[in-house]
Amino acid sequence: MADLAIGIDIGGTNTKFGVVDRAGHILVQDRLLTNEHDSVQGFIDDLHDKLMPLIEKAGGVSQFAGIGIGAPNGNYYTGNIEYAANLKWRGIIPLAKMVAEKFGLKVKLTNDANAAAMGEMMYGCARGMKHFITITLGTGVGSGIVIDGKIVLGHDGFAGELGHTIIRPGGRLHPGTGLRGSLESYASATGVRETALELLTQHPKEESLLRDYSINDLITSQTVYECALKGDKIANQIFEFTGQILGEALANFVMFSSPEAIVLFGGLTKAGDLIMNPTRETMEANLIQIFRNKVKVMFSELKEADAAILGASALVWD
Amino acid sequence: MADLAIGIDIGGTNTKFGVVDRAGHILVQDRLLTNEHDSVQGFIDDLHDKLMPLIEKAGGVSQFAGIGIGAPNGNYYTGNIEYAANLKWRGIIPLAKMVAEKFGLKVKLTNDANAAAMGEMMYGCARGMKHFITITLGTGVGSGIVIDGKIVLGHDGFAGELGHTIIRPGGRLHPGTGLRGSLESYASATGVRETALELLTQHPKEESLLRDYSINDLITSQTVYECALKGDKIANQIFEFTGQILGEALANFVMFSSPEAIVLFGGLTKAGDLIMNPTRETMEANLIQIFRNKVKVMFSELKEADAAILGASALVWD
Repeated sequence: MADLAIGIDIGGTNTKFGVVDRAGHILVQDRLLTNEHDSVQGFIDDLHDKLMPLIEKAGGVSQFAGIGIGAPNGNYYTGNIEYAANLKWRGIIPLAKMVAEKFGLKVKLTNDANAAAMGEMMYGCARGMKHFITITLGTGVGSGIVIDGKIVLGHDGFAGELGHTIIRPGGRLHPGTGLRGSLESYASATGVRETALELLTQHPKEESLLRDYSINDLITSQTVYECALKGDKIANQIFEFTGQILGEALANFVMFSSPEAIVLFGGLTKAGDLIMNPTRETMEANLIQIFRNKVKVMFSELKEADAAILGASALVWD
Repeated sequence: MADLAIGIDIGGTNTKFGVVDRAGHILVQDRLLTNEHDSVQGFIDDLHDKLMPLIEKAGGVSQFAGIGIGAPNGNYYTGNIEYAANLKWRGIIPLAKMVAEKFGLKVKLTNDANAAAMGEMMYGCARGMKHFITITLGTGVGSGIVIDGKIVLGHDGFAGELGHTIIRPGGRLHPGTGLRGSLESYASATGVRETALELLTQHPKEESLLRDYSINDLITSQTVYECALKGDKIANQIFEFTGQILGEALANFVMFSSPEAIVLFGGLTKAGDLIMNPTRETMEANLIQIFRNKVKVMFSELKEADAAILGASALVWD
């Protein structure tokens, strides 16, 4: 019986891949540079060269149930990557088909945020849940929605773009989408940095450890977190504000699909209670009665380094 | 073969019921007053007295696949009505079980908004669609979400409360929920009336036909519609504003579940293009690229008088 899967996570810079067993252990892993190859075929050839030794070492192709791939704008229905802004390859790339032909294995493709949700359901804190939402609070804000044990894909395969829902009409301009007031403009790494700059500018006389950092250093929620722990008022306000926006957004998501849990993942979650408390509190305050004190908001237990490969591999068991 | 179904729509004032065939024809229908009965059992007994002659006339119980019921706070999973604010009967009412025992037929229960979505899928303009959302713009704003051909119920049966999602943080207070800025506070009959009063107050020198109506008459979107058709500026602004809010909300819903269509139903839709145009335009303007010019926004084709019975009956064929 095929008890192993390949998980491949294609990112703008790196492509990570590994051999995963049904329990969620990554037995071996490696990576290659995504945009080093001008042609998709060149990328797949290189991937094959690097992966085959791992596959052979694990007992050969017959041990594998298939290959799962998470990629920007990956479409589960078509197996295509469609117009991914961060990748060199333009237009519509029939990646699942090309990889299947090269490896002779079943290939499933979806976007990275949906793969993350699959990982939580198979190996993470959403094990056994049939209704939950994962929100990745990283450079951007990604989301994967699970209803009745299945990823919500929508009629075209692109459902679950919760980072782009508008939570502050007329608010911050998102340079990538041209829209104003989206969740991603506030609850991402870039959003936290912008909030920091706004608060420091609005309160020029308020002392803050954050003023010792150059603007570029402010980018990480890590910096803000460290200052907040030292009692810095503005740093604490940043998480308070971000948590409020996030909590309002989560309330809206709950009233849509009534999940059992919302799993938060990504850089911002390192702030722990500083982000969790205002998020939970504001979510509860914006829910109608029937949803209150029901929905778990939790941090992912998956290691950030492993989650992308695990999530991609989880597509195979589906 | 059982080719008939009973549809029952329990409203705050009236309970409507009818015999429906698979093609969506209501063969006979009748009604009774919902809150005339202090006990649920009394209500069911009265319903039985009124329904049995219709059932007998149609060939008896054996001709019927079952009974579908739409009711406020009706829970599909449990078959209970749970804490419905508009009904006399308090707490948790095991209505599906009680009706099944009385009639000896299979009974399915859900809330009225989900029943409306089922009706659209079985008999209305969402026939053949697997991914769509219905929004009822009536006294309140109700919604039913269909994904992969199934109503989204969530982990507790209460999913799909889109009227309560926050679209204007810090905005209008909703007296029923205590929340501020929900879609229902703007895109309902009450919301339209409030918008009318706001605009008339904000522009005291602007002439408007609406000033000839008493405040109570303003409640209907019908009044505003008639004035708008006569070229009244404020009446037109009311629909423009309402459509903008609704369009923003629809954009958020699209980015959640990527439906093929959104079906609008209820009093506000009588305003036709006056509400449809700003709604569509604002929705498109708030979508990220991959969703633009894809999602149909349409008015329900079901007659308002029939829709509730049809929707309830559609539960039976599921």
